[in-house]
Amino acid sequence: MSTSDQPIDDPTLEADVFARDCHSRDALLNVTGRWGTLAMAALAEGPYRFGALRRRVDGVSERMLAQTLQQLERDGFVHREVRETIPPNVEYSLTPLGEEIAERLAGLIDLLESRMPDIAAAQNRYDAR
Amino acid sequence: MSTSDQPIDDPTLEADVFARDCHSRDALLNVTGRWGTLAMAALAEGPYRFGALRRRVDGVSERMLAQTLQQLERDGFVHREVRETIPPNVEYSLTPLGEEIAERLAGLIDLLESRMPDIAAAQNRYDAR
Repeated sequence: MSTSDQPIDDPTLEADVFARDCHSRDALLNVTGRWGTLAMAALAEGPYRFGALRRRVDGVSERMLAQTLQQLERDGFVHREVRETIPPNVEYSLTPLGEEIAERLAGLIDLLESRMPDIAAAQNRYDAR
Repeated sequence: MSTSDQPIDDPTLEADVFARDCHSRDALLNVTGRWGTLAMAALAEGPYRFGALRRRVDGVSERMLAQTLQQLERDGFVHREVRETIPPNVEYSLTPLGEEIAERLAGLIDLLESRMPDIAAAQNRYDAR
């Protein structure tokens, strides 16, 4: 088999988010998408039931949150636990890998929140040009 | 003025990405959007001219990259320098704040790239259910 025939799933290839077909780009997108980042950051605070998570991630629709959680569960970042209570409820929490990712996202969020005055000043300068 | 009339631009309010109207959520979206993350991570490698950056961020359209860079420049994360050469060229680089953000994004990307085997295994388990 020639090199150009190597499937992109070849486990000997190094993951590279800059390559458009690399699966690592999808995983990156799932934790950095509009709702993925916020869902991961919320779950870093502790497990959430669906409704409470939706209130925490202010503005997300039921459908988008369900889809986001499904992607994060598929990637192995989020654990979905159905509790056999009456009525049954579903709880979401981070897996160990999810915790590692959420930690980095939380660092990014903290930085941005703390530098909002600088960001707002930059935006004002830009808009006044 | 009653509390509920406070404008969201009130500088005494703490930034909170979980609040749907907080400007920090927009700044977060700009560095975590589909192309923002990759553009920031690429610029962490050093300054890029537009065409070279577009080749590095494999798959981005000219229009999307231009829009992404404009948002990042407006937020004060990216510096755009027009060089008066013949022909003139435009170079993009990170600002000091951009460097801090890119460092955290790079940490996230490194983690995801290194854990792709675990992620792929989780996806296979999920899809086999």
